[in-house]
Amino acid sequence: MRIAQVAPLAESVPPNLYGGTERVVSWLTEELVAQGHHVTLFASGDSKTSAELVVSVPEGLRLAGVRDHTANILVMLEQVHRRAHEFDIIHFHVDLLQFPLFQDLVHKCVTTLHGRLDLPDFHPIYGAFPAMPLISISDNQRKPMPPSVHWMATIDHGLPADLYTFNPKVGHYLAFLGRIAPEKRPDRAIEIAKRAGIPLKIAAKIDPVDREYFTHVIEPLLDDPLIEFMGEISDQEKSKFLGNALALLFPIDWPEPFGLVMIEAMAMGTPVVAWRKGSVPKIVDEGVTGFIVDSVEAAVHAVRNVGNLSRLQVRQQFETRFTASTMAQRYVTIYERLLAARNPKRIAKEMPIADRLSTLVTPPLSVISKKPGPASLDA
Amino acid sequence: MRIAQVAPLAESVPPNLYGGTERVVSWLTEELVAQGHHVTLFASGDSKTSAELVVSVPEGLRLAGVRDHTANILVMLEQVHRRAHEFDIIHFHVDLLQFPLFQDLVHKCVTTLHGRLDLPDFHPIYGAFPAMPLISISDNQRKPMPPSVHWMATIDHGLPADLYTFNPKVGHYLAFLGRIAPEKRPDRAIEIAKRAGIPLKIAAKIDPVDREYFTHVIEPLLDDPLIEFMGEISDQEKSKFLGNALALLFPIDWPEPFGLVMIEAMAMGTPVVAWRKGSVPKIVDEGVTGFIVDSVEAAVHAVRNVGNLSRLQVRQQFETRFTASTMAQRYVTIYERLLAARNPKRIAKEMPIADRLSTLVTPPLSVISKKPGPASLDA
Repeated sequence: MRIAQVAPLAESVPPNLYGGTERVVSWLTEELVAQGHHVTLFASGDSKTSAELVVSVPEGLRLAGVRDHTANILVMLEQVHRRAHEFDIIHFHVDLLQFPLFQDLVHKCVTTLHGRLDLPDFHPIYGAFPAMPLISISDNQRKPMPPSVHWMATIDHGLPADLYTFNPKVGHYLAFLGRIAPEKRPDRAIEIAKRAGIPLKIAAKIDPVDREYFTHVIEPLLDDPLIEFMGEISDQEKSKFLGNALALLFPIDWPEPFGLVMIEAMAMGTPVVAWRKGSVPKIVDEGVTGFIVDSVEAAVHAVRNVGNLSRLQVRQQFETRFTASTMAQRYVTIYERLLAARNPKRIAKEMPIADRLSTLVTPPLSVISKKPGPASLDA
Repeated sequence: MRIAQVAPLAESVPPNLYGGTERVVSWLTEELVAQGHHVTLFASGDSKTSAELVVSVPEGLRLAGVRDHTANILVMLEQVHRRAHEFDIIHFHVDLLQFPLFQDLVHKCVTTLHGRLDLPDFHPIYGAFPAMPLISISDNQRKPMPPSVHWMATIDHGLPADLYTFNPKVGHYLAFLGRIAPEKRPDRAIEIAKRAGIPLKIAAKIDPVDREYFTHVIEPLLDDPLIEFMGEISDQEKSKFLGNALALLFPIDWPEPFGLVMIEAMAMGTPVVAWRKGSVPKIVDEGVTGFIVDSVEAAVHAVRNVGNLSRLQVRQQFETRFTASTMAQRYVTIYERLLAARNPKRIAKEMPIADRLSTLVTPPLSVISKKPGPASLDA
């Protein structure tokens, strides 16, 4: 299949430092190439890929100091548009600027929405272009969206199976990893650790906007031998930090669209204790890869028992659900449905009747799948 | 001529409170309708116009609390695109989102750039779509732009001749009108007034972002019987405030793309004392409608002599250069050139040879016109 992957330009693909979306685009791209597809990656020039790279800007825009990315993304989209005939599928990882320009090409387009979707400023575009095939990264992420849009599936992120090493040994500390920000609730993590009497290591960057929150709310809580604040850590350190932990604490207070760090921990065998918010109930398999909690009491109980979970089973569940290869396979299924919709003969030969119907009609799916367990390919 | 005017959605057309661009769009639209053209205005639903109004959002986005306007503007552009065949000319007053979508329709498009153009984040789009016909609102505004873009003309803003009443009486105070902001240099205005011994009235809003600048820099300077701070004033008050002044002080320290307030003052016969920055040298006719200065000394000298200028001549110069009718006439000339380029027969009949050539070739104009005096239709 000839596939275009259209990445955001904030970071290189993969990013040198932070940047979840560009990391996922990289994993998907490499996996598709490995599976034998011809992939063209539209991204910044400092990207590293085994696909054909089309350079839109010399380097990732955040580190280049560009604050408004609109113009650069529009120029990239025009590059993609000019070459659209070369691709069977165009897969966008940018939020919304592509909708008007590609409205006559939606039959070969699909957009994965990587961010939170509860900010109403962006809803008009989704309502105005209901034909654009969309992928969510968790069912929960869809909830605030207009009902008319065309969801094709929820597809979990996945990472390469060999990226992190499985660590069979049960650790002695809780890990908090990410940003110091009110919605990430590092204060809650500290409270849980103190009440459970278990050490907590916090590895987190502090964005300028969150500096005051850190100084006034978090710093006063750090004065305890159980709590260690490590600041920002590198990708190399991250592997050790997560792998050696007893559990990852993820006490979030916002509609997290996915939460990559949860599956990173699982890849090393480290279970997750997480709040019932956003994607969490669909990512964590209760009692297998961790515990889902609603209160500090429940969290304290969970971290005291989390050492009893089988780290091997955590890793196995990761391998079943969250590898890049699983993710790529699901995306290929979507690409094939889009292709089949343009070629009814192929449908007749290759697809069961139920799928044929839904592919031919491609109805907007307004109801969010209520099925428990792994994210389903609905619609 | 069937003309579409595509307004920004931040404010209604015209705005209820602030909003220079939407005000100019309103004046141009009304004048074009008065001249017998069929005008379709794409704007927010609380706009008031004698053109056909196509409502894109119910009300101006700023007052509606929408912070990111991208999605709403894209949806409006799609409305315009769908109806493009209904128009001879599509005139955009939004900055850049239209470039990719209308690249195949540039022969009937023109974009007026209303803002400062020295922010490099936006330059890639102008470089990537060099065929889009552009209008600047001052020659100076063009300076930072990539050389390859297609400037068709600089067209001064204009306001309805009967909007403000001419006041023949020489006033007793200097007027400062606009925003309290470092680049507007209210501190300089105060220094000039104090050193000249002439009263200064400051009518200005204070945006939240400038509150600290006001408190720390400006407020301490207000404790002087010569200086009166009036806060924000209404449109009605503005007319009196400017019309009764000895002169408008415009001691700016940034590349002002146009500066509507200067021609508003002139409309009432009030001359302008302004810094040699941005558009100023092309707006103020030295010794006729005011004085252009480079230093506080020169400004003090100017405000002491500005009462000798003929207020009637100031008004007359306004009527010659800065009425909405003059502005609309210049835009119609541009529209006609675009039409003629699509219809060579018409060129042969109606246009002189020099214009014919430039219209047929429509060369990108990389050199900024150096001619003094009123803004010229170059290219």
